[in-house]
Amino acid sequence: MNAKWTKLIDDMKTGSVVALSKIITRVENREPGWMEAMKQIYPDTGDAKLIGITGSPGAGKSTLTNKIGGLLVDRGFKIGIIAVDPSSPFSGGAILGDRIRMTDVSDLESVFVRSMATRGTLGGLNQSARDVAKIMDAFGKDYIIIETVGVGQDEVEVVKTADIVIVVCVPGQGDSIQAIKAGIMEIADIFVVNKADREDAEQLVMDIESMLELDAALGKSKPPVIKTVATKGEGILDLVDKILDLMTSFGSKPGWEEERIRVELIGLVEKELLDRIKKNWNKNGRLDKAVRQVLDQEKDPYSIVQQVISPLISLLPED
Amino acid sequence: MNAKWTKLIDDMKTGSVVALSKIITRVENREPGWMEAMKQIYPDTGDAKLIGITGSPGAGKSTLTNKIGGLLVDRGFKIGIIAVDPSSPFSGGAILGDRIRMTDVSDLESVFVRSMATRGTLGGLNQSARDVAKIMDAFGKDYIIIETVGVGQDEVEVVKTADIVIVVCVPGQGDSIQAIKAGIMEIADIFVVNKADREDAEQLVMDIESMLELDAALGKSKPPVIKTVATKGEGILDLVDKILDLMTSFGSKPGWEEERIRVELIGLVEKELLDRIKKNWNKNGRLDKAVRQVLDQEKDPYSIVQQVISPLISLLPED
Repeated sequence: MNAKWTKLIDDMKTGSVVALSKIITRVENREPGWMEAMKQIYPDTGDAKLIGITGSPGAGKSTLTNKIGGLLVDRGFKIGIIAVDPSSPFSGGAILGDRIRMTDVSDLESVFVRSMATRGTLGGLNQSARDVAKIMDAFGKDYIIIETVGVGQDEVEVVKTADIVIVVCVPGQGDSIQAIKAGIMEIADIFVVNKADREDAEQLVMDIESMLELDAALGKSKPPVIKTVATKGEGILDLVDKILDLMTSFGSKPGWEEERIRVELIGLVEKELLDRIKKNWNKNGRLDKAVRQVLDQEKDPYSIVQQVISPLISLLPED
Repeated sequence: MNAKWTKLIDDMKTGSVVALSKIITRVENREPGWMEAMKQIYPDTGDAKLIGITGSPGAGKSTLTNKIGGLLVDRGFKIGIIAVDPSSPFSGGAILGDRIRMTDVSDLESVFVRSMATRGTLGGLNQSARDVAKIMDAFGKDYIIIETVGVGQDEVEVVKTADIVIVVCVPGQGDSIQAIKAGIMEIADIFVVNKADREDAEQLVMDIESMLELDAALGKSKPPVIKTVATKGEGILDLVDKILDLMTSFGSKPGWEEERIRVELIGLVEKELLDRIKKNWNKNGRLDKAVRQVLDQEKDPYSIVQQVISPLISLLPED
C-alpha cells in the first residue's frame, strides 16, 4: 500500500474527518490500493449499527433521519448518515418547494453526512453504500443511518442488510401502500406513519395494521407501527426508543451475521467484475469492434458474449 | 439446441402465444440452451419500436399504457406490454383502493402482456427486460411498451434504451418533480402531465416547462409536455400522435443504434457473470466456508474476494 493511503488511514484513526471523507471517495472510485486499505481498516469494523430508512419520495425520510440523528447525538452516540435518495436534501436533490433545512444534524461535529450518486453507477450501488458504512464504522460511528428511496430494486437492496429497517409511509399518497406492499413490506422492522397530523393518518395506520395481521397469521412477528410528525419532532422519542429496543433484542438473530457476510462477499465480487468489464472491455477498441460486428450483422450479440465469457467459466469460483 | 427449444421456436414463428410465453420464461430463467435459442431468434428482431413509460407510483402509468396500447391496436399495430412496475395492475401489484381494470388491452388478441418480478432478481433486471423485448420483437410485435417505476436506478436503466421515453407526472404530488429532476429528467422524450383535470395541473405544466427552458438554454432539444386524463381517455390521441411523430424523426439519431448494442453486450455479459457467481460459488460449500472464515475472523472479506477474482483478471475481455 502506498504512503498516501497509509497516511490517510493513520489520520482517520486519529479522528480526521477530512481523511475519512477522502478515504470514502477513493474507495468509491476504486482507486488503486483500495482493497489493501479496506483490509487495513477491516479489523476496526463491526461495532456500528445500521439503521435503514426507506419509503416513497416525499414521505419525509430526510426530516426523520435528521431528527433521529439529533436524538441519538443527544444520547451521546456518534452518528453517520448515508443518503442514497436522489431527492434527499442531504444529497442536494431538493429543487422545488420548501427546501428542508438539514442544519440540525449536519452542523454537529459528531455527525458525518455522505450522499451517494444513484446515477452513473449502473449496478453496485448497494456495495458502494456498504463500503461507505464500513468505513464510517471503522471511524468509530455508533449508528449509521442509511436513507434510501424505497421503490427501486437496488435501493431496497441497500437497506436489506441494515440492523433495523424503518419503512416510512404518509397519509394521502393512496398508492404508497401499494408500492410498499410490492417491494419492501417484508423487510420492515418498524413502520412509521409520518405526517400523522393529517386527517387520514388513522386510516393509514389501520390499513398497515391489517396488512400486518395477515402476515402475523402466517407466523411472522408483527412490526410496530409508530406515528410521527417529523417536522414538529412529534413521535420521534418513541421511535428512537423503539429502534434501540429492537436493536437490543435483535442482537442475537440467528444466522443474521452469516447472511450479511454472504451478501457482502457476493456484492464485492459482483462489483469488482462489473467495474473491470466496463473499464477493460474497450481497451484496444475490442468492444467497439464487437458493436460494429453486430451492427453490420456479421455476428449476433450472443455469440460475442459466449466468446467473452467462455474462458472465464472454468475459473469462476466453482472450483 | 435440443428438440424442445426447436419446437418452441417453430411454434412461436407460426404465431403461438403459448410458445412465446414459454420461451420468455425459459430465457428469463436462463434454462440450458437459452443462448442458442436467442441466436436463432435474433435475425427476426430489429423491427419493433420500444416505448418506455416511467414515473412515480400512482402517476397513472398503467392506465396510460392501457390507453396507448388500445389506440395503437386501433391503428392496426401489434402490441407487447412489459410491466416492470411492482405496483402495476398488469403485474398484479394493486392491492388496495380501486383496482384499475386492465381488461381493455389485455383481452385483445394482438396484445401480449408480460409482467416481470422486480424482486429476487438482484441485478440484471434491465437485461431481463431487454431479453423479453427482443423475443416479443421476434414474435412480430410492432410496438413494445415498457412500464416501469421511475425512481430506482435499475428501473430507470430499463427504459433508457427505449426508442421513446415518456415521463409521467401528476399534480398534487409535490415531490414528484424532485424525483424526476433527480433521476429521469434528462432521458424524457415526452412529458405527460396526467390527471390534468386537477386544479393544480397548470402549475405543474409550468414547473416542468420552466425546468425544460433551463435545459433548452443549454442547447438541448425541448421535449413536449402533454396533458392527459388517462382514466377518461383525454389527451391520449395527441400523445399517440406525438409518439409516432417523434418515432419517425428519431429514426436516424446518430450513434443511437451503436449505443444500444453496446448496452446490450455489456448487460448480457454482466448478467451472465452474476448468474454464474450466484449459482456456482457455493458448489462444494465454498461460499459457506468463506463466510465462516470471515465470521471466525480468520480472513477478511477483501482477501477472499481478491483470491476469487485474481484468476479471472487476466482473462477479462481486455486481451
